[in-house]
Amino acid sequence: METKSENRCHGGVQGVYSHASQACGGAMTFGLFLPEEAADAPVPLLWYLSGLTCTHENAMTKAGAQAWAAEQGIALCFPDTSPRGDDVADDEAFDLGQGAGFYVNATAAPWAPHFNMWDYITAELPMLLGRNFALDMERQSICGHSMGGHGALTIAMHHPERFRAVSAFAPIAHPTQSDWGRKQFTAYLGADETAWAAHDATLLMRERGFDGPVLVDQGTDDNFLDLLMPEALAEAMTARRQEGAFRMQKGYDHSYFFMSTFMEEHVAFHAEALYR
Amino acid sequence: METKSENRCHGGVQGVYSHASQACGGAMTFGLFLPEEAADAPVPLLWYLSGLTCTHENAMTKAGAQAWAAEQGIALCFPDTSPRGDDVADDEAFDLGQGAGFYVNATAAPWAPHFNMWDYITAELPMLLGRNFALDMERQSICGHSMGGHGALTIAMHHPERFRAVSAFAPIAHPTQSDWGRKQFTAYLGADETAWAAHDATLLMRERGFDGPVLVDQGTDDNFLDLLMPEALAEAMTARRQEGAFRMQKGYDHSYFFMSTFMEEHVAFHAEALYR
Repeated sequence: METKSENRCHGGVQGVYSHASQACGGAMTFGLFLPEEAADAPVPLLWYLSGLTCTHENAMTKAGAQAWAAEQGIALCFPDTSPRGDDVADDEAFDLGQGAGFYVNATAAPWAPHFNMWDYITAELPMLLGRNFALDMERQSICGHSMGGHGALTIAMHHPERFRAVSAFAPIAHPTQSDWGRKQFTAYLGADETAWAAHDATLLMRERGFDGPVLVDQGTDDNFLDLLMPEALAEAMTARRQEGAFRMQKGYDHSYFFMSTFMEEHVAFHAEALYR
Repeated sequence: METKSENRCHGGVQGVYSHASQACGGAMTFGLFLPEEAADAPVPLLWYLSGLTCTHENAMTKAGAQAWAAEQGIALCFPDTSPRGDDVADDEAFDLGQGAGFYVNATAAPWAPHFNMWDYITAELPMLLGRNFALDMERQSICGHSMGGHGALTIAMHHPERFRAVSAFAPIAHPTQSDWGRKQFTAYLGADETAWAAHDATLLMRERGFDGPVLVDQGTDDNFLDLLMPEALAEAMTARRQEGAFRMQKGYDHSYFFMSTFMEEHVAFHAEALYR
């Protein structure tokens, strides 16, 4: 593992690290914020999964999460959103290929050898973090934005024993029925739609739900409402009697200005679950 | 004036606007955050002047200032750091030309026709803001980072009647004696050093000081300490018995992670002066 940078931040350290990834077959970069408390003892970990076009860097610099994580004594991990590199398949569209891993393991060419973001986020990166940093891996929580909200919700519902809570900002809520989903699942997973259901938050909510609390914030002025399909997830959460809240925030859009506005509440929501 | 974007943010609006600038002889872009309260009545204005290489956008997206400005009911203006455009002189170095206006009016070629950031920030942009937005121009305050800290301090000391307080993060504190200053003043103002003194915060502090409180934060692990020369300004502030605080923050560097960490305290500092 290589340290790319470390900056003092809110009493702790905002680091950027790269490492050779088995899952993605190449170098991967992630950001990790460790609060001051990590100098003395392992701290809980909140994952932040980013959206389309993002690297590890966007949320790390624009979401304003460190202030609240420092206040709560929680670490933040900001993974990248796909494999990277000249030898990694890509597409001209912003919503396929590099920057658009969709948190699945690709089974179809040309994506299959590298695009294994599911394994990377759920297995490889947690192991690396647990071995190298002062993190209490018994206390994890997860959140994300847009494609990352999709990732956070689907990963949490598949790993209820691991995550104490899950939250999402404007998640891609029903990808099997949206152009943000059908296109990518066809490319990464193939045309057989039965393989897609395991990666649809609305379908997973209907089938199994989540053991802990769920918080979703969605802006009413989001340009991508038709693609995100929040109503499907809200309906599924309510029908399941899922513990949690689905909030429509008046006038907010899909930007980091939206996320930074409600980040304090999301971190507090996770802190309550992590320290319960 | 053209609206480039408006995003809901912390209950208010983060806007980006462009306009034809007389001072800079071309189009200029700025960011303006208006808190919720501006819908009902004019609000106080805090200027944020950015550093080398920055546009209007960096601090707007990475400094995390809107959260605290919203809490205090204060507007934030994020101007650009220089004139822009293909017809505007530039230099290959990052610290001269576009992105490096140094908050002076250039008198020497090839910079003179466009590089009038002093007039832009102190005269043209305030007039534009006062006419177009719900701002109480009787209550202004100013802060900045690095080159912007230099700008904030020098502008405030020349306009004590206008600004209730001034603060700076890692300011270029003594440019007439630093390579961050001598190079640029030679280019923009010419070789006669007598013209430079009006743009040196340490010299101005020695000569006149500031009527209100001054807050300076400087990281002890800043890579640019030799260029910033904080000791000169600290000495001048103390010798003058200037009301204020000069704080050395252990372990922090020159990045936005440093600024975002202490932004809450800076905004609170300005709020106290603005609402006094």
